Amino acid sequence: MKKLPVALCQMKVTADKDLNLQTARNFVEKAVQSHARLVVLPEIFNAPYEARLFEQYAEPVPGPSSIALQSMARDFKVAIVGGSIIEKDETGRLYNTSLVFDHNGRLLARHRKVHLFDVCIPGRIVFQESRVLSSGQNIALFKLNGFTAALLICYDIRFPEIARLAVLHGADLLIVPAAFNLTTGPLHWDLLMRSRAVDNQAYVLACSPARNHQASYQAWGHSAIVDPWGKIIAQAGPGEEIIHGLLDPGVVQEVRTALPVLKQLRTDLYETAAKHAGVITERGVDNEIPH
Amino acid sequence: MKKLPVALCQMKVTADKDLNLQTARNFVEKAVQSHARLVVLPEIFNAPYEARLFEQYAEPVPGPSSIALQSMARDFKVAIVGGSIIEKDETGRLYNTSLVFDHNGRLLARHRKVHLFDVCIPGRIVFQESRVLSSGQNIALFKLNGFTAALLICYDIRFPEIARLAVLHGADLLIVPAAFNLTTGPLHWDLLMRSRAVDNQAYVLACSPARNHQASYQAWGHSAIVDPWGKIIAQAGPGEEIIHGLLDPGVVQEVRTALPVLKQLRTDLYETAAKHAGVITERGVDNEIPH
Repeated sequence: MKKLPVALCQMKVTADKDLNLQTARNFVEKAVQSHARLVVLPEIFNAPYEARLFEQYAEPVPGPSSIALQSMARDFKVAIVGGSIIEKDETGRLYNTSLVFDHNGRLLARHRKVHLFDVCIPGRIVFQESRVLSSGQNIALFKLNGFTAALLICYDIRFPEIARLAVLHGADLLIVPAAFNLTTGPLHWDLLMRSRAVDNQAYVLACSPARNHQASYQAWGHSAIVDPWGKIIAQAGPGEEIIHGLLDPGVVQEVRTALPVLKQLRTDLYETAAKHAGVITERGVDNEIPH
Repeated sequence: MKKLPVALCQMKVTADKDLNLQTARNFVEKAVQSHARLVVLPEIFNAPYEARLFEQYAEPVPGPSSIALQSMARDFKVAIVGGSIIEKDETGRLYNTSLVFDHNGRLLARHRKVHLFDVCIPGRIVFQESRVLSSGQNIALFKLNGFTAALLICYDIRFPEIARLAVLHGADLLIVPAAFNLTTGPLHWDLLMRSRAVDNQAYVLACSPARNHQASYQAWGHSAIVDPWGKIIAQAGPGEEIIHGLLDPGVVQEVRTALPVLKQLRTDLYETAAKHAGVITERGVDNEIPH
């Protein structure tokens, strides 16, 4: 089984959208020069992570940011998980949306954040995405070089059900564009990424923006590649950085044979179930990103 | 809201059942002298953790070990989670069973391990509980001084569904008699205990036997009390030790208000569901262990 070289681009995000798109392009180019075949960008990689600014930075799909991502994918012949952007749909609703393109610039998946970030830790962090965003209604799976990937955006990672559902539908790779902060980051970033990997015996790619001391929302950074044993095999610091990893389907098999928890689920007693058929959307065909 | 002082007894388990029962009694007495109102013993606290020996050490309930636990509870006026024992039922089936007694020696809950430990990590650890044990068919909840507690035995902790189901039925305290080993311990012990606490915003009490270098199965130790933020507030080393903690219902409320994930579950898209009404057994009444 072939291994998949991946890169996570922990880029700094500014208030200048054009600059952000150019930075993303530079990071993707650099990642590809180091032989990545799948490149991941962070959550809201093209705009500041501030609810009051989402409307201003929102755009349709296709739109400038999705077209920029598509071009990068095509130009550098690489699959891209385009972190996320604020998407405005035809009715004017806003979503926190992740787009995935293959090396031909074909859209493989679109995931709209399912769980909006509404938290209130007094004196530390208060955020209300739901004041301005609408939530996604499904989990998008796609296949890439033998892996079945699912997207989770940031707060989605706190809900074990959504990762589990994806894995019960075949996922062995969870890709998480995310921007934890200086409160939730040190508390839970590594823990959540590692625990989703261990519970589901899947790879987890967690890509954060770099810390930007000028921004109102300080991202935790610490992007991480976690293997299906729960081991962090590559991790960034707080600043700008690209981290690389080689995803090995053999390790997924090894873990799932050693500790066969996914076969030992007591489905006679409980189940994690989708409420209707539309919750899981998947493309049946594998997408081979050539080396 | 009153706080609940708890103690986890990381005792060394030997091949001598009478000695083990006496050791447990000594630990419980010592824990109560330090003001614990709920005392937890480790998994299979009365016998070696070896599948080939389970039949030999098995006993009915009531039987010598359950009666010993009941006497400790009554004599020291304390609630006891009796780790677990190998229970033999009237048909001759064996179970890995945890018994909980209140300070009057009344049986509050019985949990039979739901997920049997069948693993094979070549060259490290091979274990097949299911060759000799039968599995439990339900999750037992009980109330104690305002907390709603659920029992999970060791391998049960690897299945997020069972903890989630318990929490959806009101649990805010997960009690886990467990015996990880020198392979799974360093890999996953802290991670799993902390992640169940964080995902479910509940206290986790994980009680292991002490490391016994004479035993064929080397327990990891490192018993831990984890708060609903996922912070380890007390932890043992590998050897014999009692650890103490003060469980604060206010902290459960604080976390559940700050990060209201249990209210933000997308139950329109997915659910963790019990397959039938008998999966969750609970005693409705609270049990006040007097101070």
